[in-house]
Amino acid sequence: MNIEPASLEALIGEFSSLPGIGHKTARRLAYHVLSKSESDVERFSTNLLNAKNKVHPCPRCYAFTDEDLCPVCKARQGAKSICVVEKSSDIIPFERSGIYKGTYFVLGGVISPLDGIGPEHLHLPDLVQRIKDENIEELILALGSSPEADSTALMLDRMLAGVSVKRTRLARGIPMGSDLEFVDEVTMLRAFEGRVSL
Amino acid sequence: MNIEPASLEALIGEFSSLPGIGHKTARRLAYHVLSKSESDVERFSTNLLNAKNKVHPCPRCYAFTDEDLCPVCKARQGAKSICVVEKSSDIIPFERSGIYKGTYFVLGGVISPLDGIGPEHLHLPDLVQRIKDENIEELILALGSSPEADSTALMLDRMLAGVSVKRTRLARGIPMGSDLEFVDEVTMLRAFEGRVSL
Repeated sequence: MNIEPASLEALIGEFSSLPGIGHKTARRLAYHVLSKSESDVERFSTNLLNAKNKVHPCPRCYAFTDEDLCPVCKARQGAKSICVVEKSSDIIPFERSGIYKGTYFVLGGVISPLDGIGPEHLHLPDLVQRIKDENIEELILALGSSPEADSTALMLDRMLAGVSVKRTRLARGIPMGSDLEFVDEVTMLRAFEGRVSL
Repeated sequence: MNIEPASLEALIGEFSSLPGIGHKTARRLAYHVLSKSESDVERFSTNLLNAKNKVHPCPRCYAFTDEDLCPVCKARQGAKSICVVEKSSDIIPFERSGIYKGTYFVLGGVISPLDGIGPEHLHLPDLVQRIKDENIEELILALGSSPEADSTALMLDRMLAGVSVKRTRLARGIPMGSDLEFVDEVTMLRAFEGRVSL
Protein backbone atom coordinates (compact mmCIF):
# COMPACT_ATOMS: atom_id res chain seq x y z
CA MET A 1 0.00 0.00 0.00
CA ASN A 2 1.32 3.44 -0.85
CA ILE A 3 1.18 5.29 2.45
CA GLU A 4 2.81 8.55 1.38
CA PRO A 5 0.41 11.52 1.31
CA ALA A 6 0.23 13.18 -2.14
CA SER A 7 1.48 16.54 -0.88
CA LEU A 8 4.48 14.86 0.74
CA GLU A 9 5.18 12.95 -2.47
CA ALA A 10 5.13 16.22 -4.38
CA LEU A 11 7.71 17.71 -2.01
CA ILE A 12 9.90 14.59 -2.33
CA GLY A 13 9.70 15.11 -6.10
CA GLU A 14 10.92 18.70 -5.74
CA PHE A 15 13.94 17.69 -3.68
CA SER A 16 14.69 14.83 -6.11
CA SER A 17 14.95 17.37 -8.93
CA LEU A 18 17.99 18.98 -7.29
CA PRO A 19 21.47 17.86 -8.40
CA GLY A 20 23.02 15.02 -6.37
CA ILE A 21 19.81 14.33 -4.41
CA GLY A 22 18.45 10.81 -4.96
CA HIS A 23 14.97 9.62 -4.03
CA LYS A 24 15.92 8.32 -0.57
CA THR A 25 17.72 11.54 0.39
CA ALA A 26 14.81 13.56 -1.01
CA ARG A 27 12.43 11.61 1.23
CA ARG A 28 14.62 12.25 4.27
CA LEU A 29 14.69 15.99 3.51
CA ALA A 30 10.91 16.12 2.95
CA TYR A 31 10.20 14.34 6.25
CA HIS A 32 12.60 16.75 7.93
CA VAL A 33 10.64 19.70 6.54
CA LEU A 34 7.52 18.29 8.27
CA SER A 35 9.38 18.41 11.58
CA LYS A 36 10.19 22.11 11.18
CA SER A 37 7.94 24.80 12.63
CA GLU A 38 5.31 26.36 10.40
CA SER A 39 7.11 29.71 10.38
CA ASP A 40 10.40 28.04 9.39
CA VAL A 41 8.75 26.36 6.40
CA GLU A 42 7.06 29.63 5.41
CA ARG A 43 10.42 31.39 5.52
CA PHE A 44 12.02 28.61 3.42
CA SER A 45 9.21 28.94 0.87
CA THR A 46 9.57 32.74 0.74
CA ASN A 47 13.36 32.56 0.45
CA LEU A 48 13.01 30.25 -2.55
CA LEU A 49 10.80 32.78 -4.34
CA ASN A 50 12.95 35.72 -3.22
CA ALA A 51 16.17 34.22 -4.52
CA LYS A 52 14.59 33.44 -7.88
CA ASN A 53 12.84 36.81 -8.22
CA LYS A 54 15.51 39.17 -6.90
CA VAL A 55 18.71 37.58 -8.20
CA HIS A 56 19.64 38.32 -11.82
CA PRO A 57 22.89 38.43 -13.82
CA CYS A 58 24.95 41.64 -13.45
CA PRO A 59 24.56 43.51 -16.78
CA ARG A 60 28.32 44.05 -17.00
CA CYS A 61 29.84 40.70 -15.92
CA TYR A 62 26.84 38.30 -15.68
CA ALA A 63 27.65 37.34 -12.08
CA PHE A 64 24.50 36.82 -9.99
CA THR A 65 23.48 39.90 -8.05
CA ASP A 66 20.34 41.43 -6.55
CA GLU A 67 21.42 45.01 -7.27
CA ASP A 68 21.83 47.01 -10.50
CA LEU A 69 25.55 46.16 -10.65
CA CYS A 70 27.34 43.34 -8.78
CA PRO A 71 29.58 44.45 -5.84
CA VAL A 72 32.79 43.71 -7.78
CA CYS A 73 31.79 45.74 -10.85
CA LYS A 74 30.67 48.56 -8.55
CA ALA A 75 33.85 48.63 -6.45
CA ARG A 76 36.41 48.09 -9.21
CA GLN A 77 35.37 50.43 -11.98
CA GLY A 78 38.30 51.11 -14.30
CA ALA A 79 40.19 47.89 -13.45
CA LYS A 80 42.31 46.82 -16.40
CA SER A 81 42.00 43.04 -16.07
CA ILE A 82 39.15 40.60 -16.55
CA CYS A 83 39.06 37.08 -15.14
CA VAL A 84 36.84 34.83 -17.27
CA VAL A 85 34.97 32.09 -15.41
CA GLU A 86 32.37 29.55 -16.45
CA LYS A 87 29.72 30.20 -13.82
CA SER A 88 28.93 32.77 -11.16
CA SER A 89 29.93 30.60 -8.21
CA ASP A 90 33.46 30.19 -9.66
CA ILE A 91 34.17 33.77 -8.54
CA ILE A 92 33.90 32.81 -4.85
CA PRO A 93 37.33 31.09 -4.45
CA PHE A 94 39.04 34.11 -6.07
CA GLU A 95 37.38 36.57 -3.73
CA ARG A 96 37.99 34.31 -0.75
CA SER A 97 41.73 34.19 -1.46
CA GLY A 98 41.82 37.97 -1.97
CA ILE A 99 44.67 37.66 -4.49
CA TYR A 100 42.84 39.26 -7.41
CA LYS A 101 41.74 42.89 -7.59
CA GLY A 102 40.29 43.07 -11.11
CA THR A 103 36.83 42.37 -12.50
CA TYR A 104 35.22 39.16 -13.72
CA PHE A 105 33.22 37.90 -16.64
CA VAL A 106 30.87 34.91 -16.38
CA LEU A 107 30.69 33.10 -19.73
CA GLY A 108 27.64 31.08 -18.77
CA GLY A 109 29.20 27.73 -19.71
CA VAL A 110 31.75 26.31 -22.09
CA ILE A 111 31.32 25.21 -25.69
CA SER A 112 30.04 21.64 -25.67
CA PRO A 113 28.61 20.40 -28.99
CA LEU A 114 27.44 17.15 -27.36
CA ASP A 115 25.21 19.12 -24.97
CA GLY A 116 24.10 21.45 -27.75
CA ILE A 117 26.01 24.43 -26.32
CA GLY A 118 27.60 26.42 -29.16
CA PRO A 119 29.42 29.78 -29.02
CA GLU A 120 26.08 31.52 -29.56
CA HIS A 121 24.85 30.31 -26.15
CA LEU A 122 27.73 31.99 -24.30
CA HIS A 123 28.42 35.69 -23.75
CA LEU A 124 31.57 35.65 -25.90
CA PRO A 125 30.72 38.66 -28.12
CA ASP A 126 29.91 40.76 -25.02
CA LEU A 127 33.27 39.82 -23.55
CA VAL A 128 35.16 40.81 -26.72
CA GLN A 129 33.25 44.11 -26.81
CA ARG A 130 34.10 44.83 -23.18
CA ILE A 131 37.78 44.10 -23.75
CA LYS A 132 37.83 46.62 -26.59
CA ASP A 133 35.70 49.28 -24.89
CA GLU A 134 37.56 49.26 -21.59
CA ASN A 135 41.10 48.87 -23.00
CA ILE A 136 41.61 45.76 -20.91
CA GLU A 137 45.29 44.90 -20.45
CA GLU A 138 45.08 41.34 -19.11
CA LEU A 139 42.58 38.58 -19.70
CA ILE A 140 42.86 35.68 -17.23
CA LEU A 141 41.15 32.48 -18.31
CA ALA A 142 39.91 30.43 -15.36
CA LEU A 143 37.77 27.90 -17.19
CA GLY A 144 38.61 24.53 -15.67
CA SER A 145 40.63 21.92 -17.48
CA SER A 146 38.20 19.95 -19.66
CA PRO A 147 38.54 19.61 -23.47
CA GLU A 148 35.41 21.80 -23.72
CA ALA A 149 37.12 24.54 -21.71
CA ASP A 150 40.15 24.29 -23.97
CA SER A 151 38.09 24.67 -27.15
CA THR A 152 36.24 27.62 -25.60
CA ALA A 153 39.60 29.27 -24.89
CA LEU A 154 40.63 28.62 -28.50
CA MET A 155 37.42 30.16 -29.81
CA LEU A 156 37.95 33.24 -27.62
CA ASP A 157 41.52 33.47 -28.88
CA ARG A 158 40.28 33.56 -32.48
CA MET A 159 37.66 36.19 -31.71
CA LEU A 160 40.37 38.35 -30.16
CA ALA A 161 42.60 38.23 -33.27
CA GLY A 162 44.04 41.71 -33.74
CA VAL A 163 43.10 42.88 -30.23
CA SER A 164 46.12 43.69 -28.14
CA VAL A 165 45.47 42.13 -24.73
CA LYS A 166 47.73 39.93 -22.63
CA ARG A 167 46.12 36.50 -22.27
CA THR A 168 46.94 34.21 -19.35
CA ARG A 169 45.42 31.13 -17.77
CA LEU A 170 45.61 29.72 -14.25
CA ALA A 171 48.60 27.49 -13.50
CA ARG A 172 47.96 23.76 -13.45
CA GLY A 173 49.79 21.48 -11.07
CA ILE A 174 49.78 19.72 -7.72
CA PRO A 175 47.23 21.24 -5.30
CA MET A 176 48.29 22.29 -1.79
CA GLY A 177 48.34 19.56 0.81
CA SER A 178 47.91 16.68 -1.62
CA ASP A 179 49.87 13.46 -1.26
CA LEU A 180 51.93 12.78 -4.42
CA GLU A 181 50.92 9.12 -4.19
CA PHE A 182 47.31 10.01 -4.97
CA VAL A 183 47.84 12.59 -7.71
CA ASP A 184 46.17 11.49 -10.98
CA GLU A 185 48.15 11.03 -14.22
CA VAL A 186 46.94 14.15 -16.06
CA THR A 187 47.65 16.43 -13.11
CA MET A 188 51.11 14.88 -12.76
CA LEU A 189 51.76 15.33 -16.48
CA ARG A 190 50.81 18.99 -16.31
CA ALA A 191 52.77 19.61 -13.13
CA PHE A 192 55.84 18.04 -14.69
CA GLU A 193 55.52 19.92 -17.98
CA GLY A 194 55.03 23.18 -16.13
CA ARG A 195 57.92 22.68 -13.68
CA VAL A 196 59.77 25.88 -12.75
CA SER A 197 63.44 26.35 -11.79
CA LEU A 198 64.19 26.96 -8.12
CA MET B 1 34.75 40.72 -1.13
CA ASN B 2 31.50 38.93 -0.39
CA ILE B 3 29.84 38.62 -3.77
CA GLU B 4 26.82 36.53 -2.79
CA PRO B 5 23.51 38.44 -2.99
CA ALA B 6 21.65 38.50 0.34
CA SER B 7 18.60 36.67 -1.03
CA LEU B 8 20.84 33.91 -2.38
CA GLU B 9 22.65 33.66 0.96
CA ALA B 10 19.29 33.30 2.69
CA LEU B 11 18.38 30.39 0.40
CA ILE B 12 21.78 28.75 1.01
CA GLY B 13 21.02 29.04 4.72
CA GLU B 14 17.69 27.24 4.25
CA PHE B 15 19.28 24.32 2.42
CA SER B 16 22.08 24.16 5.03
CA SER B 17 19.47 23.64 7.73
CA LEU B 18 18.46 20.30 6.18
CA PRO B 19 20.07 17.10 7.52
CA GLY B 20 23.22 15.95 5.74
CA ILE B 21 23.49 19.13 3.64
CA GLY B 22 26.70 21.07 4.28
CA HIS B 23 27.39 24.64 3.24
CA LYS B 24 29.01 23.75 -0.10
CA THR B 25 26.19 21.41 -1.12
CA ALA B 26 23.65 24.01 0.01
CA ARG B 27 25.32 26.58 -2.25
CA ARG B 28 25.21 24.18 -5.20
CA LEU B 29 21.50 23.54 -4.62
CA ALA B 30 20.73 27.26 -4.29
CA TYR B 31 22.56 28.10 -7.53
CA HIS B 32 20.67 25.27 -9.19
CA VAL B 33 17.37 26.80 -8.06
CA LEU B 34 18.35 30.02 -9.87
CA SER B 35 18.73 28.02 -13.09
CA LYS B 36 15.18 26.62 -12.81
CA SER B 37 12.27 28.34 -14.51
CA GLU B 38 10.18 30.80 -12.52
CA SER B 39 7.16 28.48 -12.57
CA ASP B 40 9.27 25.55 -11.32
CA VAL B 41 10.50 27.57 -8.36
CA GLU B 42 6.97 28.76 -7.61
CA ARG B 43 5.76 25.15 -7.63
CA PHE B 44 8.63 24.14 -5.30
CA SER B 45 7.72 26.97 -2.95
CA THR B 46 4.04 26.01 -2.97
CA ASN B 47 4.79 22.31 -2.47
CA LEU B 48 6.84 23.18 0.62
CA LEU B 49 3.90 25.04 2.16
CA ASN B 50 1.41 22.40 1.01
CA ALA B 51 3.32 19.51 2.57
CA LYS B 52 3.66 21.38 5.87
CA ASN B 53 0.05 22.57 5.96
CA LYS B 54 -1.78 19.48 4.69
CA VAL B 55 0.25 16.66 6.24
CA HIS B 56 -0.51 15.82 9.88
CA PRO B 57 -0.22 12.71 12.07
CA CYS B 58 -3.03 10.17 11.69
CA PRO B 59 -5.13 10.44 14.91
CA ARG B 60 -5.11 6.65 15.31
CA CYS B 61 -1.50 5.63 14.50
CA TYR B 62 0.43 8.94 14.20
CA ALA B 63 1.69 8.10 10.67
CA PHE B 64 1.83 11.16 8.40
CA THR B 65 -1.27 11.58 6.29
CA ASP B 66 -3.20 14.36 4.54
CA GLU B 67 -6.60 12.77 5.16
CA ASP B 68 -8.67 12.23 8.31
CA LEU B 69 -7.26 8.69 8.73
CA CYS B 70 -4.12 7.28 7.09
CA PRO B 71 -4.70 4.74 4.26
CA VAL B 72 -3.57 1.81 6.44
CA CYS B 73 -5.90 2.64 9.34
CA LYS B 74 -8.74 3.18 6.86
CA ALA B 75 -8.22 -0.09 4.95
CA ARG B 76 -7.42 -2.38 7.89
CA GLN B 77 -10.06 -1.56 10.48
CA GLY B 78 -10.37 -4.42 12.94
CA ALA B 79 -6.88 -5.82 12.35
CA LYS B 80 -5.66 -7.58 15.48
CA SER B 81 -1.96 -6.72 15.30
CA ILE B 82 0.00 -3.50 15.71
CA CYS B 83 3.53 -2.95 14.44
CA VAL B 84 5.29 -0.29 16.53
CA VAL B 85 7.82 1.89 14.69
CA GLU B 86 9.87 4.90 15.67
CA LYS B 87 8.96 7.28 12.84
CA SER B 88 6.43 7.48 10.04
CA SER B 89 8.90 6.69 7.23
CA ASP B 90 9.76 3.35 8.93
CA ILE B 91 6.40 2.05 7.68
CA ILE B 92 7.51 2.27 4.03
CA PRO B 93 9.74 -0.86 3.92
CA PHE B 94 6.95 -2.96 5.53
CA GLU B 95 4.38 -1.82 2.98
CA ARG B 96 6.87 -2.23 0.14
CA SER B 97 7.52 -5.86 1.10
CA GLY B 98 3.79 -6.52 1.42
CA ILE B 99 4.40 -9.12 4.14
CA TYR B 100 2.39 -7.42 6.87
CA LYS B 101 -1.38 -6.90 6.82
CA GLY B 102 -1.96 -5.30 10.22
CA THR B 103 -1.89 -1.72 11.45
CA TYR B 104 0.98 0.44 12.70
CA PHE B 105 1.76 2.78 15.54
CA VAL B 106 4.36 5.54 15.28
CA LEU B 107 5.93 6.18 18.69
CA GLY B 108 7.54 9.45 17.62
CA GLY B 109 11.03 8.48 18.78
CA VAL B 110 12.69 6.31 21.40
CA ILE B 111 13.51 7.10 25.02
CA SER B 112 16.84 8.90 25.05
CA PRO B 113 17.67 10.69 28.32
CA LEU B 114 20.80 12.25 26.76
CA ASP B 115 18.64 14.02 24.16
CA GLY B 116 16.03 14.90 26.76
CA ILE B 117 13.45 12.49 25.32
CA GLY B 118 11.60 10.78 28.16
CA PRO B 119 8.55 8.45 28.01
CA GLU B 120 6.30 11.52 28.26
CA HIS B 121 7.48 12.72 24.82
CA LEU B 122 6.37 9.52 23.11
CA HIS B 123 2.85 8.25 22.43
CA LEU B 124 3.25 5.26 24.78
CA PRO B 125 0.02 5.77 26.79
CA ASP B 126 -2.01 6.07 23.56
CA LEU B 127 -0.50 2.81 22.36
CA VAL B 128 -1.36 0.98 25.59
CA GLN B 129 -4.89 2.35 25.42
CA ARG B 130 -5.30 1.21 21.81
CA ILE B 131 -4.05 -2.30 22.65
CA LYS B 132 -6.67 -2.56 25.39
CA ASP B 133 -9.52 -0.96 23.43
CA GLU B 134 -9.06 -2.99 20.26
CA ASN B 135 -8.24 -6.35 21.91
CA ILE B 136 -4.94 -6.47 20.00
CA GLU B 137 -3.52 -10.01 19.77
CA GLU B 138 0.03 -9.33 18.61
CA LEU B 139 2.35 -6.39 19.16
CA ILE B 140 5.38 -6.36 16.84
CA LEU B 141 8.23 -4.13 17.96
CA ALA B 142 10.22 -2.74 15.01
CA LEU B 143 12.29 -0.13 16.81
CA GLY B 144 15.82 -0.55 15.48
CA SER B 145 18.62 -2.04 17.54
CA SER B 146 20.07 0.80 19.63
CA PRO B 147 20.27 0.71 23.47
CA GLU B 148 17.63 3.48 23.43
CA ALA B 149 15.27 1.26 21.40
CA ASP B 150 15.86 -1.58 23.88
CA SER B 151 15.02 0.59 26.89
CA THR B 152 11.90 1.86 25.12
CA ALA B 153 10.82 -1.74 24.54
CA LEU B 154 11.44 -2.45 28.24
CA MET B 155 9.35 0.56 29.27
CA LEU B 156 6.51 -0.56 27.00
CA ASP B 157 6.74 -4.06 28.46
CA ARG B 158 6.28 -2.65 31.97
CA MET B 159 3.34 -0.50 30.93
CA LEU B 160 1.68 -3.60 29.47
CA ALA B 161 1.98 -5.59 32.69
CA GLY B 162 -1.27 -7.53 33.10
CA VAL B 163 -2.38 -7.00 29.51
CA SER B 164 -2.60 -10.24 27.57
CA VAL B 165 -0.99 -9.51 24.21
CA LYS B 166 1.64 -11.52 22.34
CA ARG B 167 4.80 -9.43 22.02
CA THR B 168 7.33 -10.05 19.27
CA ARG B 169 10.23 -8.15 17.74
CA LEU B 170 11.82 -8.34 14.28
CA ALA B 171 14.51 -11.02 13.84
CA ARG B 172 18.09 -9.81 13.95
CA GLY B 173 20.74 -11.44 11.80
CA ILE B 174 22.65 -11.38 8.56
CA PRO B 175 20.94 -9.21 5.93
CA MET B 176 20.26 -10.59 2.42
CA GLY B 177 23.15 -10.42 -0.02
CA SER B 178 25.79 -9.44 2.52
CA ASP B 179 29.25 -10.97 2.47
CA LEU B 180 30.00 -12.73 5.81
CA GLU B 181 33.50 -11.24 5.72
CA PHE B 182 32.09 -7.74 6.20
CA VAL B 183 29.43 -8.47 8.82
CA ASP B 184 30.06 -6.46 12.02
CA GLU B 185 30.60 -8.15 15.40
CA VAL B 186 27.26 -7.29 16.98
CA THR B 187 25.26 -8.49 13.97
CA MET B 188 27.30 -11.71 13.94
CA LEU B 189 26.72 -12.18 17.67
CA ARG B 190 22.97 -11.78 17.23
CA ALA B 191 22.83 -14.00 14.16
CA PHE B 192 24.73 -16.72 16.04
CA GLU B 193 22.62 -16.48 19.19
CA GLY B 194 19.45 -16.59 17.11
CA ARG B 195 20.49 -19.52 14.92
CA VAL B 196 17.65 -21.89 13.97
CA SER B 197 17.75 -25.61 13.22
CA LEU B 198 17.48 -26.67 9.57
